[in-house]
Amino acid sequence: MGAYEELLVRLKDIDLIGQIGSLLSWDQEVLMPPKAAPLRAEQLAWISKTAHQRLTDSKIGSWLEMLESDDDLNEVQRANIRLARESYDRATRLPTEFVEEMAKHRSKSLVSWTEAREKDDFSIFRDDLAIAIEHARKRADFYGYENLRYDALLDLYESGLTVQRLDPLFSGLRDNVAPLIKAVVDNGNRPDMSWLEENSWDQTAQEELSQRISEAIGFDFSAGRRDLSTHPFCGGPNPDDVRWTTRYREDEPFGSLFGSMHETGHGTYEQGRPRDFDFQPVGKANGLGIHESQSRLWENQVGRSREFCEWSLPLWKQCFPDNMEGVGAEQLWQAVNLVEPGLIRVDADEATYNLHIMIRYEIEKQLIAGEIEVDELPDAWDEMYQEYLGIKAPNHSLGILQDIHWSMGAIGYFPTYTLGNLYAAQLLEAARGDLPDHDGQIRSGQFEDLLGWMRENVHNRGSVLKPADLIKEATGAVPSPDAFVRYLTSKVERLYGVSA
Amino acid sequence: MGAYEELLVRLKDIDLIGQIGSLLSWDQEVLMPPKAAPLRAEQLAWISKTAHQRLTDSKIGSWLEMLESDDDLNEVQRANIRLARESYDRATRLPTEFVEEMAKHRSKSLVSWTEAREKDDFSIFRDDLAIAIEHARKRADFYGYENLRYDALLDLYESGLTVQRLDPLFSGLRDNVAPLIKAVVDNGNRPDMSWLEENSWDQTAQEELSQRISEAIGFDFSAGRRDLSTHPFCGGPNPDDVRWTTRYREDEPFGSLFGSMHETGHGTYEQGRPRDFDFQPVGKANGLGIHESQSRLWENQVGRSREFCEWSLPLWKQCFPDNMEGVGAEQLWQAVNLVEPGLIRVDADEATYNLHIMIRYEIEKQLIAGEIEVDELPDAWDEMYQEYLGIKAPNHSLGILQDIHWSMGAIGYFPTYTLGNLYAAQLLEAARGDLPDHDGQIRSGQFEDLLGWMRENVHNRGSVLKPADLIKEATGAVPSPDAFVRYLTSKVERLYGVSA
Repeated sequence: MGAYEELLVRLKDIDLIGQIGSLLSWDQEVLMPPKAAPLRAEQLAWISKTAHQRLTDSKIGSWLEMLESDDDLNEVQRANIRLARESYDRATRLPTEFVEEMAKHRSKSLVSWTEAREKDDFSIFRDDLAIAIEHARKRADFYGYENLRYDALLDLYESGLTVQRLDPLFSGLRDNVAPLIKAVVDNGNRPDMSWLEENSWDQTAQEELSQRISEAIGFDFSAGRRDLSTHPFCGGPNPDDVRWTTRYREDEPFGSLFGSMHETGHGTYEQGRPRDFDFQPVGKANGLGIHESQSRLWENQVGRSREFCEWSLPLWKQCFPDNMEGVGAEQLWQAVNLVEPGLIRVDADEATYNLHIMIRYEIEKQLIAGEIEVDELPDAWDEMYQEYLGIKAPNHSLGILQDIHWSMGAIGYFPTYTLGNLYAAQLLEAARGDLPDHDGQIRSGQFEDLLGWMRENVHNRGSVLKPADLIKEATGAVPSPDAFVRYLTSKVERLYGVSA
Repeated sequence: MGAYEELLVRLKDIDLIGQIGSLLSWDQEVLMPPKAAPLRAEQLAWISKTAHQRLTDSKIGSWLEMLESDDDLNEVQRANIRLARESYDRATRLPTEFVEEMAKHRSKSLVSWTEAREKDDFSIFRDDLAIAIEHARKRADFYGYENLRYDALLDLYESGLTVQRLDPLFSGLRDNVAPLIKAVVDNGNRPDMSWLEENSWDQTAQEELSQRISEAIGFDFSAGRRDLSTHPFCGGPNPDDVRWTTRYREDEPFGSLFGSMHETGHGTYEQGRPRDFDFQPVGKANGLGIHESQSRLWENQVGRSREFCEWSLPLWKQCFPDNMEGVGAEQLWQAVNLVEPGLIRVDADEATYNLHIMIRYEIEKQLIAGEIEVDELPDAWDEMYQEYLGIKAPNHSLGILQDIHWSMGAIGYFPTYTLGNLYAAQLLEAARGDLPDHDGQIRSGQFEDLLGWMRENVHNRGSVLKPADLIKEATGAVPSPDAFVRYLTSKVERLYGVSA
């Protein structure tokens, strides 16, 4: 066997370990009985230790060095080598003791964050957050970077992402979206939501609606599952076994439905991965920004469109005959698109959502650069919410303590949510170019052409290209906020009759 | 670290791999979407390859040799070494190519057995069965044995089991049970089953009855689960995560309830394993015979007792108010104890069940000894059913093709079912000695003393002793059919007013 073949055999081994770990984690979130937690942690620790041992084997380093100077490789082979190098460097550049220290701190910090949030007392989380930030800075230094420390962290969640790429995207958004929100707020018209708020929404009917819409979009339930969990997510070991979850509240039905469409988007991406590259890095989904583009596409670009509301209205009426009596597609459409600045990121509408992300991005950037320190965080948070959204959290639980990410050391993660929104808009604009009857298709529940376009231009390309290059190949343009701004401006104008 | 400590570290590693494999297998049976099967097989193959590599490491052989000549070890340490030796020898004595050949043949043979059974054509399975028998003979030769080849196979499912031990158990049973069955058949009285057969039994109500009875017995649902599967089983990775399944038929409720009590018995055993010996061989359950004693105890000895019927009757009435109207404890007790020779082992009552096993035992013994060959099997089967049960299968699907075991190469497994029945009776007789108000406790739904007795005398002892020695320690007598014969004779006399 040549070095490339030997590398693939090893990568298959590592991939299988990862598949097994995914199933253990899914089970832990969805089904596992409570007392099983400590031994499940041992099983998962065994999995990550074993995967780490195999990945950091110096043989991989030698194969990679040999292959990196080989000029006879094709695009896929080169991409596998690039991606394997990325994983190998990430695994070998951090000293073992530092990795253990971070892991231990993560567990501790998750506990103090939970307590701080419950008791609405930032001081309980303060010290652990300070350490988490220090860990993130050190980690960036171990990985290395060209310009900014923060770049090394951004790169973890989307390969090739930098502040230099993100700054113009966010400023383009801010310049256009902030005035739009202000115009809606000043306008003061709120759609009629009484039919929504005054009814109770049966869980079984919500489950049926979610299931039928997910099936209609094209999620293959013979290669996946829908389950219930406290924190909705999409997981599972491989494209033949994709498992997404949702949760239900009987006082409102949108959370479960749009949550289900969101996870269905992630799920169709996983199911659409290129099967010739099973067990290879190029066969994997391409980073968090692209992943989020697929979830946001179905949740927002399709799910909150006027056409989708027209198609889904009869389903709504079948599932909730009493509640939906007299409700028309226009009313449904207005209700699912309510624009209203609020404190909580996960509850935000399409217009305000990215401003929540922008605040976190600016804060992380300054934190990692050492321009602000942990004690200044609560004030910085309040000032930015005032500036961007014109509101102020009455307490820290609804403010700086609302997200789990920092307690898990996930700094550099938030921007991928906004990237997802921008990519979704840019991809749909491109798809429309190839699908002239897109609106008519959505109106009649024909989703296969849109899904087919994503399969061909996104899913099937796996991780052969870096994310930004994939967007360029699929849409003909580098990532930009323009399509999203066009989309949002037109939608807000139709909904509220206002423009910025 | 000394050799013993090094051995324990390695055994923990192997145990964790086994735990992970258990979860993958449970998921495969219970939840996995159909298209996931091929990649799940790859994951499971990875698990068994990895476990095999770790177990066959020659270091284990060296540690064992060193420790086997050490006189300063305590009972638990000696048992760990004995059990590790057993696993090590089993893993190292079979040539790798032979293991692969068997595994491949198992998959093939499962397919031909399924087809043969569906088409009721023994010839479709005939060649694969012949190979499976040849494999079993070879396997026994690789393992080695003192007296009979078949002993090496029996030992796989219950350590220390031999034909010399089994023959007197089975002959004791045959001499006493066969005449008892004949007396019942001749007597001709059949209890009134119309209330059972004329009603439909709602699945949700069956689930509730199963759940409440399993909880009452003492299965801890915060350390386990109940689910639905085609083939009921008890699995899961460890004592904190024990998962049993059942299945439901709406035309009769006993299958799901007694199936649930059976699996609850297995489950309480797993939950009761000694936690000081987590990850060690001595902390495991003690072979299939003892395991089956715990399932049969709750399913039959307790579940089909007059006292249990009295206690559970109000639950039956709550779950099935219409169906159970006018049904009393006596009627319920008679119905759950119907004695009737039938063709199918898994549907057999307590009296006839062991005769089904005896037939398979006699056939396996002769097959492995080369006294009969595969082409003589169908006739041998029919003759024995005629002799022992007085009935003849109208076709091979209801005869020689009914069980999956031989297609999986599991020769030597069947006898543990009967051992379970005998051990259950012997254990309960001993427990009664310590629990003078046993019947009263069952009548009032107080199961904790009986479960406590099993915890102390069986579950907590893990695999410190060989199974037969454990029975002797717990009951004061070597394994024998006497307690079971006494139990059955008295029950049949009370039910049918007959004796042998």
